[in-house]
Amino acid sequence: MPELRKDPVTGRWVIIATDRARLPGDFVRQPVVEKPGRFCPFCSGNELKTPPEVLAYRDKGAANEPGWTLRVIPNKFPALRVEGHITRQGEGLYDRMTGIGAHEVVIETPSHTISMSGLPEKHIENVFWAFRDRINDLKRDSRLRYIVVFKNHGELAGSSIEHSHSQLIALPVVPKQVIEEMDGARRYFDFKERCIYCDIAHQESESMARVVIETEHFMAMAPYAPRYPFETWIVPHRHESHFENSTPEEMQNLAWVMRSLLRRMDKTLERPAFNFMLHTAPVQEGALQHYHWHIEVMPRLTKVAGFEWGTGFYINPTPPEEAARFLREAGLT
Amino acid sequence: MPELRKDPVTGRWVIIATDRARLPGDFVRQPVVEKPGRFCPFCSGNELKTPPEVLAYRDKGAANEPGWTLRVIPNKFPALRVEGHITRQGEGLYDRMTGIGAHEVVIETPSHTISMSGLPEKHIENVFWAFRDRINDLKRDSRLRYIVVFKNHGELAGSSIEHSHSQLIALPVVPKQVIEEMDGARRYFDFKERCIYCDIAHQESESMARVVIETEHFMAMAPYAPRYPFETWIVPHRHESHFENSTPEEMQNLAWVMRSLLRRMDKTLERPAFNFMLHTAPVQEGALQHYHWHIEVMPRLTKVAGFEWGTGFYINPTPPEEAARFLREAGLT
Repeated sequence: MPELRKDPVTGRWVIIATDRARLPGDFVRQPVVEKPGRFCPFCSGNELKTPPEVLAYRDKGAANEPGWTLRVIPNKFPALRVEGHITRQGEGLYDRMTGIGAHEVVIETPSHTISMSGLPEKHIENVFWAFRDRINDLKRDSRLRYIVVFKNHGELAGSSIEHSHSQLIALPVVPKQVIEEMDGARRYFDFKERCIYCDIAHQESESMARVVIETEHFMAMAPYAPRYPFETWIVPHRHESHFENSTPEEMQNLAWVMRSLLRRMDKTLERPAFNFMLHTAPVQEGALQHYHWHIEVMPRLTKVAGFEWGTGFYINPTPPEEAARFLREAGLT
Repeated sequence: MPELRKDPVTGRWVIIATDRARLPGDFVRQPVVEKPGRFCPFCSGNELKTPPEVLAYRDKGAANEPGWTLRVIPNKFPALRVEGHITRQGEGLYDRMTGIGAHEVVIETPSHTISMSGLPEKHIENVFWAFRDRINDLKRDSRLRYIVVFKNHGELAGSSIEHSHSQLIALPVVPKQVIEEMDGARRYFDFKERCIYCDIAHQESESMARVVIETEHFMAMAPYAPRYPFETWIVPHRHESHFENSTPEEMQNLAWVMRSLLRRMDKTLERPAFNFMLHTAPVQEGALQHYHWHIEVMPRLTKVAGFEWGTGFYINPTPPEEAARFLREAGLT
């Protein structure tokens, strides 16, 4: 019997097709493979082919020279720009504003052919430090209300550049789905006087049915009402609304968990394309009792069709308990 | 300068990348082509390979025999089933319910190789009549609160079967995005005492900048804040919240408009994959002053990436004024 499950934060219903569960072998696998050879502006040595860096972690060399292990640059074709003023304007019944913002690329490694799951733990940690450093810098511009941090890996996940990278987009508005998530968490807090994510982590840790990895500081788990097969959330144990306030111990542990999760996905799902997105509180807000930052990771195994587009109502052919079991038992650390 | 535009109904902000507009030739085209030859259960003569039909329009022949021009069958692998009772149950802090509902397939033509844009007008009209007939039948089951009607055309749009078809999914809950659209329309009505879609149609008809086709009964237009390049909405002139209450004249005219729009897309975008979805009021509600049914058509030209997934915030590289101009000038009737 198929089941309808409700995401406790957003209230989104999802159909979980329990009676014809699709397991890893049932998906058409399209492993992400690296094709070296073509010119790549993200490779070490090609620094002058990109806009000047806004941040780099380097062992040697001057700015915009080789010697870096991680480099952050403005997107060459930014969706939004920092220059100018925010002007809101009407157009009959419509509303528009100037596209103030920032769009940056985190080049995660100088090497063209290593994907994130293949990076040493310390390098993955650097990626998270770079997110922190750029968030802290960008949020000084009080016009910027939200910073979306995400990664597209593989063509199926919308990435047009193979070289391992992630992105930040700073926006003058808080996106609708972020507001909805925050509102949902606030409603729960108003009712229970507890953070819903803390409660989720607690319940999951007790049942273990959907837990993939649990460490001192984090839980990687399949959510109760996942939109996609093998969707996995990384949730910190310590209550904190803003990712950028993570401790050094947490950053280190997060890198370990992310690496372990991606390697488990690589093994179970044959190097799938994936997206991850950081869910964190709006940068101009103070500490929030009701919200709890986390990362949502989504392997891209199925095409999203008309039904999902139009309704925000998803059919997921893999129960999260099955997905978690496969990833948990992937036999990797 | 990129522009942020707000969808007036849902409040969703979209980045319109005006300064590097992508025009039809800039997209990697992947025309949908028919590959005849394989066995297809939707073809005439194979009626016994599908579940028994729940509706058919036929010139001759008995039920589940050849002679039909359109046939509606239950999905062989339904996401939801009609049998059973709705049971809502908690699981710690989570909520679930049994997957009561229906999932049906409208086989739009007995021919395997004709896609919707190639069907005669009268056959497209029959597709809309089939939607109406099935909605009217399904809504007699008062447990069913919403009926999602949609079409996926081409693999990129999530279709695994080539034979031209659309689908209905009847749900025991109203999907979140439908509620949001209804709520947005209600807020406008509370403020203005007018239907927002009527106002939109009126404003678009005056400016003509985003109009693709205007007929006696309908307007096909690029919305002001489209999520996707060449996204087009078909909006009836007459205020009506429920699609199933359309008049015969409207149904006939809708078929003409849909055919013309799909043919314009085929010509401009080289037979793209597309989705369309019917946006209509929940079936158990009476006539609503604030809501206005319409159809949203989305060619699938770009891959949706991590940014869009996580935020509901879209970057659209084609301004709707450009998209509308290309479709308007496609030189077809």
